[in-house]
Amino acid sequence: MKSYRDLSPSLRTIMTPGPVEVDPRVLRAMSYPILGQFDPEFTELMNETMEMLRDLFQTKNQWCFPIDGTSRSGIEAVLVSVIEPGDKVLVPIYGRFGNLLVEISERCGAEVIMLERDWGAVFDPEEIIEAIHRDKPQIVAMVHGETSTGCIQPFDGIGAACRETDALLVVDAVATIGGVAVETDAWQLDAVIGGTQKCLSVPSGMAPITYNERVEAKVLRRKTIERGLREKGAEAKPGKTVASNYFDLGQLQDYWSPKRLNHHTEATSMLYALREGLRIVLQERLEERFARHRRHEAALVAGLCAMGLSLYGDPDCKLPVVTCIRIPNGVDGESVRAMLLNSFGIEIASSFGPLKGQIWRIGTMGFSCNQKNVLHVLGALEAVLLWHGVDISAGKALQAALAFYARKGEELPC
Amino acid sequence: MKSYRDLSPSLRTIMTPGPVEVDPRVLRAMSYPILGQFDPEFTELMNETMEMLRDLFQTKNQWCFPIDGTSRSGIEAVLVSVIEPGDKVLVPIYGRFGNLLVEISERCGAEVIMLERDWGAVFDPEEIIEAIHRDKPQIVAMVHGETSTGCIQPFDGIGAACRETDALLVVDAVATIGGVAVETDAWQLDAVIGGTQKCLSVPSGMAPITYNERVEAKVLRRKTIERGLREKGAEAKPGKTVASNYFDLGQLQDYWSPKRLNHHTEATSMLYALREGLRIVLQERLEERFARHRRHEAALVAGLCAMGLSLYGDPDCKLPVVTCIRIPNGVDGESVRAMLLNSFGIEIASSFGPLKGQIWRIGTMGFSCNQKNVLHVLGALEAVLLWHGVDISAGKALQAALAFYARKGEELPC
Repeated sequence: MKSYRDLSPSLRTIMTPGPVEVDPRVLRAMSYPILGQFDPEFTELMNETMEMLRDLFQTKNQWCFPIDGTSRSGIEAVLVSVIEPGDKVLVPIYGRFGNLLVEISERCGAEVIMLERDWGAVFDPEEIIEAIHRDKPQIVAMVHGETSTGCIQPFDGIGAACRETDALLVVDAVATIGGVAVETDAWQLDAVIGGTQKCLSVPSGMAPITYNERVEAKVLRRKTIERGLREKGAEAKPGKTVASNYFDLGQLQDYWSPKRLNHHTEATSMLYALREGLRIVLQERLEERFARHRRHEAALVAGLCAMGLSLYGDPDCKLPVVTCIRIPNGVDGESVRAMLLNSFGIEIASSFGPLKGQIWRIGTMGFSCNQKNVLHVLGALEAVLLWHGVDISAGKALQAALAFYARKGEELPC
Repeated sequence: MKSYRDLSPSLRTIMTPGPVEVDPRVLRAMSYPILGQFDPEFTELMNETMEMLRDLFQTKNQWCFPIDGTSRSGIEAVLVSVIEPGDKVLVPIYGRFGNLLVEISERCGAEVIMLERDWGAVFDPEEIIEAIHRDKPQIVAMVHGETSTGCIQPFDGIGAACRETDALLVVDAVATIGGVAVETDAWQLDAVIGGTQKCLSVPSGMAPITYNERVEAKVLRRKTIERGLREKGAEAKPGKTVASNYFDLGQLQDYWSPKRLNHHTEATSMLYALREGLRIVLQERLEERFARHRRHEAALVAGLCAMGLSLYGDPDCKLPVVTCIRIPNGVDGESVRAMLLNSFGIEIASSFGPLKGQIWRIGTMGFSCNQKNVLHVLGALEAVLLWHGVDISAGKALQAALAFYARKGEELPC
């Protein structure tokens, strides 16, 4: 029989838009022995996690819990639970993950109305508000921060327009949660999906979500107790039942409620990890955490500009946690990334679709977002670009970043 | 702000049908720093995991990989990918998890044909073969081991009947994989779903699956590349596309293939855990592992019978990894379970539906399946039953189990 080596992954400096480095406190949490899923000690940990998620999402919503799957499982759980076949879903698209919202909505049987924007920019909220009044969708599904393009979409007035027209506003905040403000209640977002492996710095494998009474009302209209658990005679509702059992929010909220109605077996070690990650976020405090993300982004940008590189995308809508860099003409972007990984142990990202081969993306997210990492990536990128014969200003990037940090850097450097 | 305690879960002896105790080697694997999802070191770990899953499932199938979710996510991924709306799905039900197969199949738009058996027994394979020839289903979906009743279903001839009638045979082996033989190729199973948190003793949160070319052919007929990744003009196939993006096996196999086509972000730490759990299983060797499960089951049964308790279910189809005990008349089953947990730190399970309040279930699964645990649970159960005033033979249970172990126990004791 083939023998497999002891696990011993190399230590990486992970400066992608996720997954990013995990705080050792979170790694340690996963190494604790497990509890049974209905052990009162475990259900107490589940309840604490729900409480902390309320603070993270800045909401008073009762329902805040993780879906046991990666980030897109949270998106699919919300969409499949709120979209009834034939519902109109409005999706403003300004990058890859808007396309994912379309893809999932179509698979849920929605009639999708798309608004499209060239990649690298976002929508004036007024355009979206007009479309809401014109098209009267049942659901508006939008991305808050697009890691594919490094842009962030403002929400001014969109929540209010959805209330006026009785639409539900579903927001993919996978990239922003824990790194940039996501004000669920103040912005009148009806459902929000976060990601663990980005600004929360918990490994991929859970997707925290929250939703309010407006969403719950629709979920409850479609709810069916699982066959084998329900009373005789309480049959499924033909045509109404959610197309997924795993993602049925009506069943999931019973599992997360004091009823503890059996559904899946909660992912124990991932729940430990999420709880510890949330403790770290709340101990730092949200405002300070957001300021830290802006500070290291600014230092990174100062260094990149000093080196002579150009950023991609409209600076007015730049996502603070992802910085996109135009690959200089004639440079093989993948060769640069490979050398960064193989010689320096640093990972940065490429992009998708129309941006493939056009930009690199550097994340400054969560635990990875710190001065040491920013300085390492600037120094390494400069060396690798010089090695590739790119005409950049040697020695300037780190001086600019150091100067920024020395000034305790409040102003944006370039 | 409320402050939350450091994580410090109590150490439990978990003798339920899952989730069970996790080998410290697996816990340690989860505490390693993560790698990026397309880091060559990580994709190599993914490939090794696929190889080891082939040995676990006893198959030469190319496709063996985990779904990132709990066990039922694996079941849903297979069913939603192979069931086209209107397909006939035959489900023989002999416990709760047969009902789950019906529930998921119905949500996928199947016309479900049920065969029902009173709980506590299984089907003569001939009955199922007859139904296959009579009803000509496109899919037969069955549970291998029912944890709800402690029964195991034999498959003799069922795989062959499915080949003859061109049906796909989908098997839920969540409870048995790694504890009881599951011979995917020899039994002609077309798709098999395993669970991590039972006999593999990896935390809940992943569902290893395997499927053969017959399943792949159907998956490929329905395949669509994700919007935003596909070429212009390659539109979705109306009416054919799988209703889920997260669970679309066509997309998932591209992610797990050398193409590495972007889909979700693989759950890094859970993948580390699964890989380590599989290493442990294969190092023990499957046959020896199955024999260990039978040995400790026999010792447990010897003790329970010596105490004067009755087992539930037909002994001819007893699942070796779950032992169901009739709760003696007049005893509050939940009070016994609570005392076991609170005084002894031992968790055993109750059951569902018609068996609620009727039986206790004791698991002997994976890392939890050992002599120390069997002796602890017997000693503790005796004390708790005496405390509750139950008329049992004091002192006999442990003597019977010790005698069984002393005989190196090959024969079944009662």
